[in-house]
Amino acid sequence: MRVLGVDPGLTRCGLGVVDALPARRAALVAVGVARSSSTDDLDLRLLAIFEQIEEWLDRHAPDVVAVERYFASDSVSTVIGTAQVAGVAMLAAARRKIPVALHTPSEVKAAVTGSGRADKTQVQRMVAQILGLAELPRPADAADALALAVCHLWRPAGALASPQRPVQSMTAAQRAWAAAEHAARRPTRG
Amino acid sequence: MRVLGVDPGLTRCGLGVVDALPARRAALVAVGVARSSSTDDLDLRLLAIFEQIEEWLDRHAPDVVAVERYFASDSVSTVIGTAQVAGVAMLAAARRKIPVALHTPSEVKAAVTGSGRADKTQVQRMVAQILGLAELPRPADAADALALAVCHLWRPAGALASPQRPVQSMTAAQRAWAAAEHAARRPTRG
Repeated sequence: MRVLGVDPGLTRCGLGVVDALPARRAALVAVGVARSSSTDDLDLRLLAIFEQIEEWLDRHAPDVVAVERYFASDSVSTVIGTAQVAGVAMLAAARRKIPVALHTPSEVKAAVTGSGRADKTQVQRMVAQILGLAELPRPADAADALALAVCHLWRPAGALASPQRPVQSMTAAQRAWAAAEHAARRPTRG
Repeated sequence: MRVLGVDPGLTRCGLGVVDALPARRAALVAVGVARSSSTDDLDLRLLAIFEQIEEWLDRHAPDVVAVERYFASDSVSTVIGTAQVAGVAMLAAARRKIPVALHTPSEVKAAVTGSGRADKTQVQRMVAQILGLAELPRPADAADALALAVCHLWRPAGALASPQRPVQSMTAAQRAWAAAEHAARRPTRG
């Protein structure tokens, strides 16, 4: 299983590709940033990011694309460009029939560190450890994309509480994930 | 000059095509709605809307695509899906090298009615009158897309105040437009 993580951004869009290994380990395949120029018009910036994501999809052929899911945490003006980049990333995957998974920042933290409230450095250290890297992944947006990809591989199976699987039987990481996912469950409007 | 207006929405995305005629008149070419199913995943919904917009671009070959520009007026959760549809619409145009223009709702009202504070019905009545339609355009999202296209054709030339063109020399419609555009000028973040 190969996952491309996408940390959407209009100026810098983090991209990270990770392969699942046996025994819940993972291997770094590629990490980088898709860029667009802030002096270009918005449509040309979205096209530039879209084309770079298409190149990554062609070059690395991921089985899944994991994209950061946003909610009402930031101001609307900040969120719009980010949401549009997330949109064209999802579109690029959907055009190739590659499944898309959306994970919130809290879900990423919970899956990678076992706590939905871990700080950025804790997440990056765990990602480096999981991938067997000597140093923290750089740049930071690329590290977030790797964390997203690792999150998708490492999310606890059956983490959602259900009649068949009460909260009490979960591990700490599964409970953190379930809490993060529950908090994120809001309907998509349109 | 032919303009495709796009009123972005995830469930219903309004589309309206208008041709400029001499003497500041305009002709309706096509009006409709691109739809996606609310039960589908977000990536498939964006793909569905993208493909319908591509069909409209191929069928009607507009010279410009005019898309509604959003700002911090609505809640973030409402804006995200809308922004993503606007993003894939801009992408569809950019991939065909068709220029994209963004207009705020206030700019549309100012260009169509002469007042940035006109209500929806006033805008629709003016759009119907400009296009020589016996009835108000339906459905409402399609009417908004037509208003966007008409706005792009009818926006006052040189409406922005400048040393060469002081505010005092503008018509009422030009002043309303300039005020709406000034209010909308915020940097795109990324």
